[in-house]
Amino acid sequence: MMYGSMEHMVKNRELVLVSYTEEGPVTDDHLKIRESNFNINGCKEGEVTVQNMWVSVDPYIRWLIKEPARALYFDTFKLNEPITSPMVGKVVFSANSGFEVGDVVTGMYQVSEYTIVEGSALRKLDTNLFKPSDYLGPLGTVGLTAWAGILLVGEPKPGDEVLVSAAAGAVGLLVGQLAKIKGCRVVGSAGSDQKVKMLKEEFGFDDAFNYKTQTDWDAALSKYFPKGIDIYFENVGGKMLETVLNHINMKARIPLCGMISQYNQDWKESYGVRNLINLVGKSGKMQGFTVVEYFHCMEEFVKEVGGYMQQGKIKYREDVHVGIESFLEAFNSLFSGGNIGKTLVQLTPK
Amino acid sequence: MMYGSMEHMVKNRELVLVSYTEEGPVTDDHLKIRESNFNINGCKEGEVTVQNMWVSVDPYIRWLIKEPARALYFDTFKLNEPITSPMVGKVVFSANSGFEVGDVVTGMYQVSEYTIVEGSALRKLDTNLFKPSDYLGPLGTVGLTAWAGILLVGEPKPGDEVLVSAAAGAVGLLVGQLAKIKGCRVVGSAGSDQKVKMLKEEFGFDDAFNYKTQTDWDAALSKYFPKGIDIYFENVGGKMLETVLNHINMKARIPLCGMISQYNQDWKESYGVRNLINLVGKSGKMQGFTVVEYFHCMEEFVKEVGGYMQQGKIKYREDVHVGIESFLEAFNSLFSGGNIGKTLVQLTPK
Repeated sequence: MMYGSMEHMVKNRELVLVSYTEEGPVTDDHLKIRESNFNINGCKEGEVTVQNMWVSVDPYIRWLIKEPARALYFDTFKLNEPITSPMVGKVVFSANSGFEVGDVVTGMYQVSEYTIVEGSALRKLDTNLFKPSDYLGPLGTVGLTAWAGILLVGEPKPGDEVLVSAAAGAVGLLVGQLAKIKGCRVVGSAGSDQKVKMLKEEFGFDDAFNYKTQTDWDAALSKYFPKGIDIYFENVGGKMLETVLNHINMKARIPLCGMISQYNQDWKESYGVRNLINLVGKSGKMQGFTVVEYFHCMEEFVKEVGGYMQQGKIKYREDVHVGIESFLEAFNSLFSGGNIGKTLVQLTPK
Repeated sequence: MMYGSMEHMVKNRELVLVSYTEEGPVTDDHLKIRESNFNINGCKEGEVTVQNMWVSVDPYIRWLIKEPARALYFDTFKLNEPITSPMVGKVVFSANSGFEVGDVVTGMYQVSEYTIVEGSALRKLDTNLFKPSDYLGPLGTVGLTAWAGILLVGEPKPGDEVLVSAAAGAVGLLVGQLAKIKGCRVVGSAGSDQKVKMLKEEFGFDDAFNYKTQTDWDAALSKYFPKGIDIYFENVGGKMLETVLNHINMKARIPLCGMISQYNQDWKESYGVRNLINLVGKSGKMQGFTVVEYFHCMEEFVKEVGGYMQQGKIKYREDVHVGIESFLEAFNSLFSGGNIGKTLVQLTPK
């Protein structure tokens, strides 16, 4: 294996954080594309050069472009550096004996067209059974989030009544299908009639409703959950959570995956939940989690969910935006309720 | 054993619910004393007549005198019937071979001077080691609440940073001492300087503060918890909970025992907690519980906590009001922050 021998220069584009923002949509005042010359053969011992194929676009990124003091997850992104995200790419140069040119790999690293990455931060992917982008969706952090959240935090039992918010989103689609596999009755809430139809007809949800056209959520929950709610998989926060709390059963579980309705604002402007007392009376559990805690379960998870995919028990959708310049559009679609399934930016053709 | 043979009539007074109330203090418009003639020898096969000595006075009762549709715990009390509470009394007539006149017993039954109770609903007490009222305090439902909440829900580890709200209350005093026994650093919040002093000097809390004179709770928590909060034992709800959520550490646990600040109002008028998102970022767990779930642990609990009491590791205080006519005064003192330790109504001298 040769490396460092000759320069092989290409144009590279990366997505750089130029300023933090606390509220409202993210624009190119905050995230900018920076172009530079890049030496494909420039990696050091142990590193590989990856030409990236796919970028995962996820709501939690919103927290990482707030002032460090305001962020809650991990560390915020650093100013004037590329942001990071789960990525999938193809090795185009290797200075690590564990990787060969042509290997398809995944890791959490800089959002750019080409990246030099430590081999130890990469995982080689089997692309015979699954396509590369699956490893950013049902078999990636999104899938692990859904799997850990509904199965390990939610602890579903056959017959449990399950509500999934943001059900047509990347995580929600998987959560609903996993809960169905475990014998639960599953209802999804989503932001359009088209999504509602899709959840019921394509993804096997027992029922679904459009939270934008339902003016009375309390009445909607009474209608869809005459027997109350055992598990609420929480993706949205705010008023939906408050409404749900008045419908929970004894020993209800509320895995807190995210609260997307609250991300574009300072917490002081967020909706205040007034009825947490329900958790006392109902011995309810509300538990936050982040996917990093479950990385050690990756193998078990891929085996289980990969199995369901091969058996056709889990379906999936992707919402693909093309080119690094489409990142902002893709990202902001997560907050407008426009996306279905896993939002991705495709950097190179398959 | 003879029973039913002769009438033995006495005056009896019982505390009857005459109307529900959603908001504000409870008065004699809601709870009234009803006097009647009572036949001490009037019990049927299997029952015993108890002359009651002590009534437990607890905040959760507030929920049970709301309209049934508004209540969260169990069933609400029924109109025109005596309310119920944990009681301790002495058997004065027995039609149950398991009980003899003079036995000291406890159970959850009607608040009255004399009560006829099924023997199966009573537990005989050992009054050699502990005094009868201890079985409504550290060795009763209050103690079990503290024990289950801090140990089973809170899962304290040595070195954990623990905040206890309503720390000078019946449950809080025990929670703080149990957390100390488990090797935690414990800070209490309470409603007077006298209580703060007492927590530190008498009950071994590492520190304590007066939430009424601290105008900036956020600053107070920064001061008392420079390393953040691992366990918040929640008795008060509302703004204190919100403030705490901005100070929790990764994997924080929040056992929800009660939310006393929220009991005297409709949930829609309650304080809205705006920063539950912290639970997501910190993988925090907030879990409600009620003592009834842990009744099966009674023996294990009495053994552990009774042991600590005999070793002098757990101290306790009682706030005693005398006579059934003092019940309302005792009950309302729970909400004004006036009480220290376990609030009791004494019906007969020891």
